[in-house]
Amino acid sequence: MSEPVPQETQAVPPAVETTTAPAPTQAGEGETPAGPSKSELKKRAKEAEKAKKAAERAAREEEERKKREAKEAEDHAKQNYGKLPLHQSQERNHRKFIKFAELSPESVGQRVIFRARMHNSRAQGRLTLSNLLGAKIVFLAFRQQTHTLQGVLVVSGEKDENQVSKQMLKYSQLIPSESIVLVEGVIKSAEVKSCTITNYEVGIHKLFTAVEVGDLPFSIDDASRAEADFEKAEKDENLQYSRVALPTRLDNRVMDLRTPTNQAIFRIQSAVGQLFRDYLNSQGFIEIHSPKLQGAATESGASVFKVQYFNGTAFLAQSPQLAKQMAIAGDFERVYEIGPVFRAEDSNTHRHMTEFLGLDLEMAFEEHYHEVLEVLDEMLKNIFKGLQSKFQHEIEVIKKQFPHEDFLFLDETLKLPFKEGIKMLKEAGAKGSDGEELGELDDLSTENEKFLGRLVREKYKTDYFILDKFPLAIRPFYTMPDPTDSTLSNSYDFFMRGEEILSGAQRVHDPVFLAERMKSVGIDPASMTGYLDAFKLGAPPHAGGGIGLERVVMLFLKLGNIRRASLFPRDPKRLNP
Amino acid sequence: MSEPVPQETQAVPPAVETTTAPAPTQAGEGETPAGPSKSELKKRAKEAEKAKKAAERAAREEEERKKREAKEAEDHAKQNYGKLPLHQSQERNHRKFIKFAELSPESVGQRVIFRARMHNSRAQGRLTLSNLLGAKIVFLAFRQQTHTLQGVLVVSGEKDENQVSKQMLKYSQLIPSESIVLVEGVIKSAEVKSCTITNYEVGIHKLFTAVEVGDLPFSIDDASRAEADFEKAEKDENLQYSRVALPTRLDNRVMDLRTPTNQAIFRIQSAVGQLFRDYLNSQGFIEIHSPKLQGAATESGASVFKVQYFNGTAFLAQSPQLAKQMAIAGDFERVYEIGPVFRAEDSNTHRHMTEFLGLDLEMAFEEHYHEVLEVLDEMLKNIFKGLQSKFQHEIEVIKKQFPHEDFLFLDETLKLPFKEGIKMLKEAGAKGSDGEELGELDDLSTENEKFLGRLVREKYKTDYFILDKFPLAIRPFYTMPDPTDSTLSNSYDFFMRGEEILSGAQRVHDPVFLAERMKSVGIDPASMTGYLDAFKLGAPPHAGGGIGLERVVMLFLKLGNIRRASLFPRDPKRLNP
Repeated sequence: MSEPVPQETQAVPPAVETTTAPAPTQAGEGETPAGPSKSELKKRAKEAEKAKKAAERAAREEEERKKREAKEAEDHAKQNYGKLPLHQSQERNHRKFIKFAELSPESVGQRVIFRARMHNSRAQGRLTLSNLLGAKIVFLAFRQQTHTLQGVLVVSGEKDENQVSKQMLKYSQLIPSESIVLVEGVIKSAEVKSCTITNYEVGIHKLFTAVEVGDLPFSIDDASRAEADFEKAEKDENLQYSRVALPTRLDNRVMDLRTPTNQAIFRIQSAVGQLFRDYLNSQGFIEIHSPKLQGAATESGASVFKVQYFNGTAFLAQSPQLAKQMAIAGDFERVYEIGPVFRAEDSNTHRHMTEFLGLDLEMAFEEHYHEVLEVLDEMLKNIFKGLQSKFQHEIEVIKKQFPHEDFLFLDETLKLPFKEGIKMLKEAGAKGSDGEELGELDDLSTENEKFLGRLVREKYKTDYFILDKFPLAIRPFYTMPDPTDSTLSNSYDFFMRGEEILSGAQRVHDPVFLAERMKSVGIDPASMTGYLDAFKLGAPPHAGGGIGLERVVMLFLKLGNIRRASLFPRDPKRLNP
Repeated sequence: MSEPVPQETQAVPPAVETTTAPAPTQAGEGETPAGPSKSELKKRAKEAEKAKKAAERAAREEEERKKREAKEAEDHAKQNYGKLPLHQSQERNHRKFIKFAELSPESVGQRVIFRARMHNSRAQGRLTLSNLLGAKIVFLAFRQQTHTLQGVLVVSGEKDENQVSKQMLKYSQLIPSESIVLVEGVIKSAEVKSCTITNYEVGIHKLFTAVEVGDLPFSIDDASRAEADFEKAEKDENLQYSRVALPTRLDNRVMDLRTPTNQAIFRIQSAVGQLFRDYLNSQGFIEIHSPKLQGAATESGASVFKVQYFNGTAFLAQSPQLAKQMAIAGDFERVYEIGPVFRAEDSNTHRHMTEFLGLDLEMAFEEHYHEVLEVLDEMLKNIFKGLQSKFQHEIEVIKKQFPHEDFLFLDETLKLPFKEGIKMLKEAGAKGSDGEELGELDDLSTENEKFLGRLVREKYKTDYFILDKFPLAIRPFYTMPDPTDSTLSNSYDFFMRGEEILSGAQRVHDPVFLAERMKSVGIDPASMTGYLDAFKLGAPPHAGGGIGLERVVMLFLKLGNIRRASLFPRDPKRLNP
């Protein structure tokens, strides 16, 4: 087993420059010139005294320097710490590097090697303390993603290959926070309070800096605190916390992403996509990828981004709606897509972005669009169950910063007819956005959606439900009308904690009727011939829906702002990083 | 069990108009006017005869009409066929609809219901024949995705609920190709030659048209033929095949996608993404989603699409390169992304598109970038193995239209140093694109890549290999140089059938060195501060790679043109459908 070769080991401190004073001349010897004046003699005596002192000091310093050099020459730990050269894959020794998450009772007593961040608070906190005490022991905190592990450096007497010197101790305390270190040591049982790993620590034998980091925009600890901590700090003079505002976080997103909270959020985000796919794959769906560059603006009405396309213009897809329906007309039967959707809407709210991830599906059905509604419902419940069963650690980590009640959902999902929802709202005293009484065919304001969410939670004990049979007039032209009530439609929204996360419907699959519907909402069928043509070639009855990935993550974890659920969010005012 | 209610049953043929001739007047009776001339008499006799014949004919026709009407009233099969009303989810009976792919020996004797396409060739072929013979039996072909099933309609004597009438027979033959039908019948053992399902057929009891289709741009059969079939047809006058050119297919992509070949291709495409994820998930990766809208043009040099972003300009990401590296600096350790990438290159070749699917990954490593190269290699082998073991049916379907040798790969992948590749090419007589001798640090032309692919296949019996250690000068600025030879780099390309499908490298993770590298290739570091800042905050050594999904599919299946591996391809000349 060989170890990293330190390129620049601890730099030898520059030797203190000793100012050797000129040797004092003996007064009153040899030639006898005009005798010096009294004041001159006094001055000379002073100078001689000064020179003597300087010489003494120089001698003392020289001695100290020699001692120090001797001591440094004695630093048998030199090979055990220092800064590593730029990693260019110089060699490969097939050593196993451990992850903190894998530590177990079997790890105790084992010599391990790992790469980690020098976690910010601990080393800094101890620095002053250990200097004051001239300590022979130092505690460090190393971080890997959501886990921190305590490291212990103890100056050792033996001059063996594992020696830890005072110099090494000092070096360890000067490694800047967030630097990437390589550590070799032995895992020990311990009781640790200030790290996430509370039952183990590592006794350090080697400590190298692989990547040294400079100034930080904020500390990981400050970026990880809950709002309640800040409120506490405001009442307590001893607590000096800095709030890190969301724009500051997003401007320095790479730093922000390292907080345990964000490490957990994006594991959850990844899991949502995976659970979405897992369920749909088990139901015979295939994944498709439709082009985001479109020849025509899709779904007129909503705002669309224009792209300079060679000598012409293209548009960014506002959803894979048309493409996934064409895939159904192309006989794929059951398709889903996970991809970016673009909305050129100048909305600056907690839940709008100009680019977000759509989880879309479309499915041919046999007898009734509820076949599709049920697949959507089972798929979502599969996501909720999967998160609560397999990602409890991540949820707990996030709760520390964003406290919330666990997401509630029923085995048998509540399917509420739209009219029923309006009735519940009216009975509870809700009004329309114009202050007028709510009509049975009115659209729901965001406020009333949230209100309905609270009413449903109270009455049915669930944060998740389906609103079915929306009024036809407030849905897109391609929505299939209800077979018996032409003011209603075969369409639905799904809600989480009172906010819409999925919108869907049975689609009009008949080209003649589709063209009629287009005209009735002011769209020229000639402007969407590619889409209409697909139905002229025959499409089976089908329905589907689209989910906003970030919304699901935001609402499940109650993050309060959709930007927190997006790796590098985009809104009308943000295109970087 | 109830069945679909036909809205318009077989229209009753319009009654034949009977022209009732005026009753002939008796000649020579009553008043005696001037007697008619002989010729006049002759004429009248003729007319009388004519009128009589007309009356007789009318009576005969009337009788026939009555008979026909009576017979039609007797069509006890009327409830068993016809066109269904628009499907608006009128009712739900929870009937189980079968899929042809699920047919098994247990199905024999079972009464089933299914939805399928009326497959084009069969019904049309039989139409003339059965009319000529006044047949009491008709064979139809139904299609579900890659499977066709023979249906048999036999006129039955019994007047029970399963009765099949002559009218029903005729109706079945008039259903246009590609229409969507609902069929009820009994599965029987059979020997069938002209369908993909050769051991079963369905005895039809009910046959309804759910969606009727008009004119078709081409037939599924013509669109499914191999090049060899057309060559055969050119020599055989009896074979009348129409070649369907690729642009025609793409203009009518919905129709084209219904061919068994395309049904299989996009199942394979979906599977490649799934196998990519499965392997990486098993290795601790998480999926990320990075924004496609960028504030600055990434990776200067390559062409980039401009987007009108409110009052400013945005750019479409040419790859998630920078974002995935920032995710590594953000401590996610192992990330992958599947998403669209955009290239504003006016390349009109068989292997370029302006939008394609990138399978990207990035990974922090410990000792050597070969750790990442090995993950990439195992991931690709996992894809090849998964396809060959689980998608043999699809591969066989595709081979009928695109014959090819099975994709060859070794258990232990060949890793060839770039210099070694150049040596093999030189020894085989290859020249540079300028006709000069190949230099050790020259880039490989597409032609030489293909040539090397053939040489490797001959020598090592593999269609898949890795070229490692590319010259530094021909790689992007963020590529890490080799630690010992500064003209080389820690970078690699992966090849399938002589074409590059993956390009990757260890990246420069040191911000000072990265800025130097930028300057050395003429990029102002100030133009990429967001990216540089990520490394100032400290990033671990990392490497990664990007794969073109469509290229993998095209090369694995030897489709010859990348557009065949894209659902709705985009190139400089195509933005629709």
